[in-house]
Amino acid sequence: DSEVIYRNSNGHVIKFNLLTNETEIILPNTTFVNFNVAKFSLSPDMKYVLFAYEVKQVYRHSFMASYSIYNIHTREVWELDPPEVVNSVLQYAAWGVSGQQLIYIFENNIYYRSHVKSNSLRLTSSGKEGVIFNGIADWLYEGTEEILESHVAHWWSPDGERLAFLVLNDSLVPNMVLPRFTGATYPKQKQYPYPKAGQPNPAVKLFVVNIYGPTHTLELMPPEALRLREHYVSMVKWISKTRTAVRWLNRAQNVSILTVCDTTTGACVTRHEESSELWLSKQNQQPVFSRDGSRFFLTVPVKQGGRGEFHHIAMFTTQFRADQNEVRHLTSGNWEVTRILAYDEPNQNLYFLSTEGSPRQRQLYSVKTVGLFPRRCLTCDLHRTNCLYFSADLSPSNQNLLLHCQGPEAPTVILHSLNNSNYYILENNSVLKAVLKYKRIQKKEYQTVRVEPFDFPLQICFPPDFSPLRQYSLLLVIDSAPGGQAVSERFSLGWDSVLVSSDGVIVARLDGRGSGFQGQRILHEVHQRLGTVDVQDQIAALEFMMKLSYIDRSRIAVFGQGYGGYLALMMLKSTDSLVKCAAAMSPVTDWRLYASAFSERYLGLPVRDDSRYQVSSLLQSVQALREQTLLLLHATADANIHFQHSAELVKSLVKAGANYSMQIYPDEGHFLSAPSRQHLFAALSGFYRECLKEELLPLPDEDEEEEE
Amino acid sequence: DSEVIYRNSNGHVIKFNLLTNETEIILPNTTFVNFNVAKFSLSPDMKYVLFAYEVKQVYRHSFMASYSIYNIHTREVWELDPPEVVNSVLQYAAWGVSGQQLIYIFENNIYYRSHVKSNSLRLTSSGKEGVIFNGIADWLYEGTEEILESHVAHWWSPDGERLAFLVLNDSLVPNMVLPRFTGATYPKQKQYPYPKAGQPNPAVKLFVVNIYGPTHTLELMPPEALRLREHYVSMVKWISKTRTAVRWLNRAQNVSILTVCDTTTGACVTRHEESSELWLSKQNQQPVFSRDGSRFFLTVPVKQGGRGEFHHIAMFTTQFRADQNEVRHLTSGNWEVTRILAYDEPNQNLYFLSTEGSPRQRQLYSVKTVGLFPRRCLTCDLHRTNCLYFSADLSPSNQNLLLHCQGPEAPTVILHSLNNSNYYILENNSVLKAVLKYKRIQKKEYQTVRVEPFDFPLQICFPPDFSPLRQYSLLLVIDSAPGGQAVSERFSLGWDSVLVSSDGVIVARLDGRGSGFQGQRILHEVHQRLGTVDVQDQIAALEFMMKLSYIDRSRIAVFGQGYGGYLALMMLKSTDSLVKCAAAMSPVTDWRLYASAFSERYLGLPVRDDSRYQVSSLLQSVQALREQTLLLLHATADANIHFQHSAELVKSLVKAGANYSMQIYPDEGHFLSAPSRQHLFAALSGFYRECLKEELLPLPDEDEEEEE
Repeated sequence: DSEVIYRNSNGHVIKFNLLTNETEIILPNTTFVNFNVAKFSLSPDMKYVLFAYEVKQVYRHSFMASYSIYNIHTREVWELDPPEVVNSVLQYAAWGVSGQQLIYIFENNIYYRSHVKSNSLRLTSSGKEGVIFNGIADWLYEGTEEILESHVAHWWSPDGERLAFLVLNDSLVPNMVLPRFTGATYPKQKQYPYPKAGQPNPAVKLFVVNIYGPTHTLELMPPEALRLREHYVSMVKWISKTRTAVRWLNRAQNVSILTVCDTTTGACVTRHEESSELWLSKQNQQPVFSRDGSRFFLTVPVKQGGRGEFHHIAMFTTQFRADQNEVRHLTSGNWEVTRILAYDEPNQNLYFLSTEGSPRQRQLYSVKTVGLFPRRCLTCDLHRTNCLYFSADLSPSNQNLLLHCQGPEAPTVILHSLNNSNYYILENNSVLKAVLKYKRIQKKEYQTVRVEPFDFPLQICFPPDFSPLRQYSLLLVIDSAPGGQAVSERFSLGWDSVLVSSDGVIVARLDGRGSGFQGQRILHEVHQRLGTVDVQDQIAALEFMMKLSYIDRSRIAVFGQGYGGYLALMMLKSTDSLVKCAAAMSPVTDWRLYASAFSERYLGLPVRDDSRYQVSSLLQSVQALREQTLLLLHATADANIHFQHSAELVKSLVKAGANYSMQIYPDEGHFLSAPSRQHLFAALSGFYRECLKEELLPLPDEDEEEEE
Repeated sequence: DSEVIYRNSNGHVIKFNLLTNETEIILPNTTFVNFNVAKFSLSPDMKYVLFAYEVKQVYRHSFMASYSIYNIHTREVWELDPPEVVNSVLQYAAWGVSGQQLIYIFENNIYYRSHVKSNSLRLTSSGKEGVIFNGIADWLYEGTEEILESHVAHWWSPDGERLAFLVLNDSLVPNMVLPRFTGATYPKQKQYPYPKAGQPNPAVKLFVVNIYGPTHTLELMPPEALRLREHYVSMVKWISKTRTAVRWLNRAQNVSILTVCDTTTGACVTRHEESSELWLSKQNQQPVFSRDGSRFFLTVPVKQGGRGEFHHIAMFTTQFRADQNEVRHLTSGNWEVTRILAYDEPNQNLYFLSTEGSPRQRQLYSVKTVGLFPRRCLTCDLHRTNCLYFSADLSPSNQNLLLHCQGPEAPTVILHSLNNSNYYILENNSVLKAVLKYKRIQKKEYQTVRVEPFDFPLQICFPPDFSPLRQYSLLLVIDSAPGGQAVSERFSLGWDSVLVSSDGVIVARLDGRGSGFQGQRILHEVHQRLGTVDVQDQIAALEFMMKLSYIDRSRIAVFGQGYGGYLALMMLKSTDSLVKCAAAMSPVTDWRLYASAFSERYLGLPVRDDSRYQVSSLLQSVQALREQTLLLLHATADANIHFQHSAELVKSLVKAGANYSMQIYPDEGHFLSAPSRQHLFAALSGFYRECLKEELLPLPDEDEEEEE
């Protein structure tokens, strides 16, 4: 509440005291250089630092690393190793919640130390590489949108006396092989469990172990309705020292049960159930509970007249029995609450982020949990920051706010006291801002594309010297998946910005059917029809743009990545000569080959000759791609969207005699290494620059020569 | 001697009698259609046919198939299966040399049947998939140039009473993994033993089994000098009912011993030894023996003044002891004997093919083995056939010749009686010739490129309407490996011919240092320096062409495949802006990653930090490729030149920020399937058409629009 610790742009770790306005360097930047540290974290008692070395990324979040512990006072350093192991490479290591508690994961087992120098206690023993995962996610739980989206599958109780953790049993999950081509005379491939649509999923169990006294492990049982059915655990959150909230979701992802479990007895009580004809979204959302657990807040879809359902805050208060709630809706309207941050119980205030101003924005609000639920925007009038897209953290007693302003200008971090309304700029990104001042930066504008009965937001990036009297080429970028958002006020400068600034290309992005933050109706439109209505909307965006006088209709290009790569290619198949060229980076080409939790959410469990999967497959009638100028890009060791997807597409293209060009990133994963990313950006800008250049003008080089 | 059996262009199997001039249809084409036959062969007694179904190519020569036996008379058909197996897929099946003898190979073991309906006898039992190979080659013996170059590693004695066979033990050979991407939800990769440079090679043993009576297997031991050293068996040939000639070659391929083995006792006698400071070539050449074995003929390198050694016929005649020969050289000159065909002992005539007229040609000669060894060209005056490139087979008693005329015009097959000089055209390729008559066909010319002190042959293909007053673009095609030949009179029409005929591209090919059929000196120039002097010669060819008035120096392209792909890329690295664009199909990029028997022949066993291997590696200083327009093509399941080669190159290119474009052929091998080959040809012609087009002329499309 009075202190904040952060690492500044010089690399020092700083402690800032709001009351005294004093800053202190806890760890100078030299420490990191001297010890060659890649990641670090401070112990809860602030006496030690955990250093991670030789970090090797595994999937999006997970990484392998070696760890050591550094005594800030004595500067002593020692390795963190499991018993009887030296030079260990760990899957995870972190401080607990109090004192010097340490937890780490090695070979899929959880280890615990009460103090930095105490003996390690092995909390699990069933761990088996690629089969049984204790406290750490398998690929599906880590890599799939809206499941855990983290490799951490364990959660400390607030007092550090208990640890909840998942055990994922992947023994029935088929293994996918990632080829390896380079780095050895005989390269060894890697395999890991990856359930594709319709394949056996990992079996999940949730346990709680008490750390103090004789360790004792208790399983928290799923609710009766899901016990014998395949299910996911999509959220675990401690709500008191002994109780956790857990969300259980059936495999079809249309029935979800929120339980509160007493971890001393293992008894779980259902507090809320959701079900849907389609699928349930935001299933990893954390509810916010009152201190005694009798009340909690959750965003739930609420019908808003003709525009369908929007996520709004519901306040659930226990009546008579624990499983009977009184429900009050604190917010409503044609906008969404994107995240509930904190409940200030003494002041009866709930803090949340929402899109009330515009789906493009995120502002911080508070709402009174009593009376007529009056709400107040806390960030809307922060005029001097020019900020429209916030994320925020509250201090433990909700006295201070850490505001992350993420756009439209270069991000800044602001510390804001709710008591005295003081502001402290922790990071104003002045270096970046100074650099940008002298660059030709794109100008963003927003339009609306009407596709009856919807209005979809369209973002257009114009060159700095744009003139409506000139003719420009157009690049449509498709880079979000269902539930995602491409058009927002978040700051971003990508390879496509270079095309806008330097090559006079206009770049457009549309959030059409399937996109998030505009209500459930737009989102749900893609149910059982991925790659159909969402493709139509992208085409509508192109047609909208092509009617503009300053767009050269003969120079239109498309780019998509991942799900967007899929849409870009589906679009190409259904537009004859609208698009001059297209590039697709790691596209999904057949949903049967993609992760169960994702494919099944939208298309259901695949059956034999499944028409939904067939209609949504890119591999059908690729003849339509024959005359297109197409660049495919894919990393060969992509663990998320396997290279298989592009290989199957290429095989079909070859059979159909279709043209294509390809770039591969050998042995790279879904998230490219820095040099490969740089190569990718150069390759993409080169490809579009070449494709979109004006053809009939004399070459500028020749002009210059003539002048000389 | 009086009958020839062949399949004609209608698909009928025909027996033609030279004495009566009668033809008879043995098997009508309908048989093949009715039984869906992919391959077939007639039994020695002409009563049965062996049909192969569901042929699945493995490497260049080997294939898996199911087999059945067809009784020509009764039309009865039955499956060929090992005992206790149904619906078997065999690695090999063929008739023996007499009656209805059958041999087949299943799970690396050899099986034998004395009659089509008799029980199968298993001749070996040590066979183990991917480990012990009986009578069939492993990848190295089959796939490497100048080792067996066949998947058949067994040989019948002339009377069919004995079978010689290799046992290859690959248990120490490291396995290479071929990835698989398509065709299944979870594709399974394939692995097989593939010794790369410096890795353990297969251990080879040679056995002879007698088929009649109680089967008895005898090992033929390598000569003392090679017994304890790693070696290859590069040739086995029966020279009588009980004796075989065997060539043993040390791993370094610079010591070779030709033995004659008595297969009743196992005793082997050395008949000829060769050694070299460099490497020995033509080590799978078969010697031709006299009936009693006291005399044999072999081509050996013979010094021809300043131009180095050329392969000429040596006649070895036993003196006193079996291992002491009198050697007489039957031919000499600055040309090569390419193959000894047969020894007509009664008439003291030896038949052979040579390059005497020109290295581009192959003509059939006979030489007297007595007197002054007068020789006579048998094909040079076949004027009406216009043929310059022959291969030939002689009938058992050397009365009749089967001549395969392979160029320069469309191939024909001629039966020629040496008795009465009659000709019978078995296939005149009239359909193809008729089609070609109305096509715009390239005109080939030959020039000489001087690179002191050598003159290298250069082939230039001109468009049919070539005019020296116009300007043409140039494509240099590099498509042969050391010992090979790109410039010859053999008929060929490839994708590059289309560029010549339709796009006005001039295509050139050069046989520079390292190429074959021009003497050992030119061949040996690449010893320990692959990719250096041979690259210089290709550059010399470009420079030669660029001096010609009709070549547009700004439109020069290069193509190479396999070894040629390697040369093309090495060349690109050392020429700054000579070449506008280049494509390389399945290039070798590092010789450490290629087959031991090939790499070591030229570069020796690799040692740590081997400078020869480093200098010859494409992966060094790829920065030189930064500004090049480069298309890479590679099949991902190439078992010969692994996809690894291109992947390593791409990884280096990405790191160096170099441009490249790629086409992959997913799950295809070194030899592409028909649809992929078609795609490849279209892709290559498209790539070069685009790259080599004239840039400054107005676009034809626009002209048309204006006219409208």
